[in-house]
Amino acid sequence: MKRLKVLFHINELEKWDTALGNIINLLKDVGEESADVVVIANGPSVNAYGNDNKLSVMKGLSERGVRFLACRNSLRKMCSSGDSCITEENISSFIETVPAGITAIIKIQSDGFAYVKP
Amino acid sequence: MKRLKVLFHINELEKWDTALGNIINLLKDVGEESADVVVIANGPSVNAYGNDNKLSVMKGLSERGVRFLACRNSLRKMCSSGDSCITEENISSFIETVPAGITAIIKIQSDGFAYVKP
Amino acid sequence: MKRLKVLFHINELEKWDTALGNIINLLKDVGEESADVVVIANGPSVNAYGNDNKLSVMKGLSERGVRFLACRNSLRKMCSSGDSCITEENISSFIETVPAGITAIIKIQSDGFAYVKP
Repeated sequence: MKRLKVLFHINELEKWDTALGNIINLLKDVGEESADVVVIANGPSVNAYGNDNKLSVMKGLSERGVRFLACRNSLRKMCSSGDSCITEENISSFIETVPAGITAIIKIQSDGFAYVKP
Repeated sequence: MKRLKVLFHINELEKWDTALGNIINLLKDVGEESADVVVIANGPSVNAYGNDNKLSVMKGLSERGVRFLACRNSLRKMCSSGDSCITEENISSFIETVPAGITAIIKIQSDGFAYVKP
Repeated sequence: MKRLKVLFHINELEKWDTALGNIINLLKDVGEESADVVVIANGPSVNAYGNDNKLSVMKGLSERGVRFLACRNSLRKMCSSGDSCITEENISSFIETVPAGITAIIKIQSDGFAYVKP
């Protein structure tokens, strides 16, 4: 089977459960060896990277090859607004930060990844 | 004119009216002979496949070539949650069920379909 | 660097701030000479084209090369519903109207633009 490539774009905190459920269903359906899955969070959704319950699910998925990206602009904005403060220093090591989430969203699509907005 | 190919992804029940309106506008604008239109519902939005008013509009569109897909995972989840229960047995015959909606969303895009999230 | 091409689809009025913030971040990150940015508004989101504060930000972005499109179907529908009435005659001159926003969304993606739904 042709390898599936997909980018999940999450910018609202409340969409994480749907997104993680979609990914679990995808891997169950096609197998992790058949899919390249990237998740990018920008805007308020980056706060999920400080939520232990969600991080536990994400970590399990990252061990199956799913990549999790965080927009650095958004992390900084969340910090300055006094909410939970996730920095590049304290963020979980399996999460990759990118300078601007929006740039990554465009580049990854131009690499042939389908776009999904949960 | 180059044939237009588009996938509508609906995962929230309240987005159906927008999606169906978009499709009607599209067919009015370019003609049904110039567009390949696929609609995929996953998550709670699959409940619209049990709504007579919406089904009536969908059926008319299906007769003009629009394809309607339903995620089987989502149908089962809705059933187990005790809401309306649409199964592969009682679903309208013009609706196609797919094992995992998310897989179809990726494959259809990789076939050159534009993605629209209403 | 490969030129970045991106289409922002806005159909909800409250998503404009996120979209405009994304565009500002993108241009800051890669420079306006490296990105082709198109924004298309359909549905109730077209009302932002009558909002002076938002128009001021959009105008600045349009001078940096960002294109703003409005769905004519949606403008007419908003007029007939008695809300603010933006017409092709009184709309700001930097905004382009297209007959059907949905058709433009498909064609622009088929020209290689990434899709972003803020």
